[in-house]
Amino acid sequence: MDMQVLALVGSLRRGSYNKLALRAAQELAPPGMTIEAADIGVLPLYNDDVRTEGYPPEVQTLRERVRAADALLFVTPEYNYSVPGVLKNAIDWASRPPEQPLDGKPAAIMGASTGRLGTARAQYHLRQIGVFVNLHFLNRPEVMIAGAAKAFDASGRLTDEGARKLIADLLAALRDWTLQLKK
Amino acid sequence: MDMQVLALVGSLRRGSYNKLALRAAQELAPPGMTIEAADIGVLPLYNDDVRTEGYPPEVQTLRERVRAADALLFVTPEYNYSVPGVLKNAIDWASRPPEQPLDGKPAAIMGASTGRLGTARAQYHLRQIGVFVNLHFLNRPEVMIAGAAKAFDASGRLTDEGARKLIADLLAALRDWTLQLKK
Amino acid sequence: MDMQVLALVGSLRRGSYNKLALRAAQELAPPGMTIEAADIGVLPLYNDDVRTEGYPPEVQTLRERVRAADALLFVTPEYNYSVPGVLKNAIDWASRPPEQPLDGKPAAIMGASTGRLGTARAQYHLRQIGVFVNLHFLNRPEVMIAGAAKAFDASGRLTDEGARKLIADLLAALRDWTLQLKK
Amino acid sequence: MDMQVLALVGSLRRGSYNKLALRAAQELAPPGMTIEAADIGVLPLYNDDVRTEGYPPEVQTLRERVRAADALLFVTPEYNYSVPGVLKNAIDWASRPPEQPLDGKPAAIMGASTGRLGTARAQYHLRQIGVFVNLHFLNRPEVMIAGAAKAFDASGRLTDEGARKLIADLLAALRDWTLQLKK
Repeated sequence: MDMQVLALVGSLRRGSYNKLALRAAQELAPPGMTIEAADIGVLPLYNDDVRTEGYPPEVQTLRERVRAADALLFVTPEYNYSVPGVLKNAIDWASRPPEQPLDGKPAAIMGASTGRLGTARAQYHLRQIGVFVNLHFLNRPEVMIAGAAKAFDASGRLTDEGARKLIADLLAALRDWTLQLKK
Repeated sequence: MDMQVLALVGSLRRGSYNKLALRAAQELAPPGMTIEAADIGVLPLYNDDVRTEGYPPEVQTLRERVRAADALLFVTPEYNYSVPGVLKNAIDWASRPPEQPLDGKPAAIMGASTGRLGTARAQYHLRQIGVFVNLHFLNRPEVMIAGAAKAFDASGRLTDEGARKLIADLLAALRDWTLQLKK
Repeated sequence: MDMQVLALVGSLRRGSYNKLALRAAQELAPPGMTIEAADIGVLPLYNDDVRTEGYPPEVQTLRERVRAADALLFVTPEYNYSVPGVLKNAIDWASRPPEQPLDGKPAAIMGASTGRLGTARAQYHLRQIGVFVNLHFLNRPEVMIAGAAKAFDASGRLTDEGARKLIADLLAALRDWTLQLKK
Repeated sequence: MDMQVLALVGSLRRGSYNKLALRAAQELAPPGMTIEAADIGVLPLYNDDVRTEGYPPEVQTLRERVRAADALLFVTPEYNYSVPGVLKNAIDWASRPPEQPLDGKPAAIMGASTGRLGTARAQYHLRQIGVFVNLHFLNRPEVMIAGAAKAFDASGRLTDEGARKLIADLLAALRDWTLQLKK
């Protein structure tokens, strides 16, 4: 099995806990699964006039990477009880015609926050977005890393064993789900 | 009464139905209410490293205009069953410390879409965002202009009389709500 | 192929548009699919003390029918921008231990309302419920029959051809989805 | 000041953590505020045919108590990532014509769960319901008592000091909000 997963990370901050969580996911991926991150920080703000004139090259790159991926992994903080604008903007570019690259992709969500809810509210908004763009999200496990300031060590390694196990379980489930949906 | 309302429009497209709906709102505002739009298309993508180095001037301008406004009016399309990334990005910038400019503002929502639901799903996500940033949204009327392609004439004027009445009612309710919350 | 679908209808009213919509679904089911409705109007209000003493017979019956079904079909009005209490109460009984009968079931949603949104808000709440109880909902088509008073004739037959086609498409998709998830 | 608050508790279980949380609220209410609970466990399942024949006496009682209250307090567990059917059923009865008793009431939400999220998902669904029935919910504080098994002592007293303070703050905010909306 060779499975390419494209990660969309909702934070642009260099020291982002979600970037660190992605790094943990890359370590914990099951054999055969490769996880690479899209660069969504280079995208312009979505403007439909721009789209009709032709997708900018950064958008083209995103769309091609989404299309080529076997599955998607959203790794995102919660901003203001919802999905970060940065991440939503990437989805808005990725979801437009002519073909729709997100259509039918298996997908999983994980998130880290310093607060108590671990990005739960952002995750449910993301799930509703997935209904329209036709992502097939895993129901479980839900990976909501709360209290992120204590979950990582000084070098940025995720040291919370419960969180590590959840991420490993998520990725194993994503692999199985992706294989099942391909049949 | 002199009441300044700042509008945040979720679409950057020149011919946007929501920009036209804002124009209708400006015509239909009750005496004493002025509605001006923020320019959210010039904002960079939110990046917390940038914030800690100092808000860029475009962000400063947005934050000052939000702070100065008596009330906010969100006029937004629905992208992918949620708030456009462009609009969420503006909220993400406007909501950060030291002071939080959105805190306690009265607010109203309207939206136009070519589809059948008239941005309903985006509006409920926006309401959840409002819980965190402490906006005081009007419950009613809900202004969801469906089938927007038929609601405006060739010059861009909103000709749907039902929609015009709803917008006028919304703005009158926003005026009353703003006055009540100031007491 | 022989596929048993259990329908949960969110309205108890005799002349309910959703009961009529279910009747249409029974006519439009693809060959081999049988759709029967659970009787959720006989259930007591959920009380965890009652559960620990032993499920009442009506609840047992519901749970056994859910367990036996190959797939579930929710046919529901929207009450107060959410799922009717009656339907949620049935889900609350069906979702409890020891085994959890809803776990892993393929499922579809349809709804009829006299208003404009055709039960959209109830459907998204139902989808969030499905994440926890581990239903595998179809993303599409979304069957939201608005203006129900005009969609049915005096005999109660669904005469709106667009709605009939959507229901037929929904059921065909449910059949395919159910077969795919069984592999 | 004399302020009557009607509490709607989403659990019927005798030893319910939410009943205990209500008891704590009754102790922590500011001077002049009285909190009494409605008895929603005696209601029949909502049936619109029954409504048109005349509200049953238990429903009449609920509706009169809602009407007489200055404000409402929802105290609820989360069932299956949403509002318990039992509580939604009470709202469904309380929200119907001729007059609509919930209309315009100030309201607050609190909830306790043994899990980590403290009923967050149920609370946001309840807020969306409030848009339609025109409740004026407080945005903050949000009272989400997670890990309820450790928050109460053997006698059922809420001993978590953080939670006690939050409840006291919620009720003080509800008093102020109710007074402000009456002006």
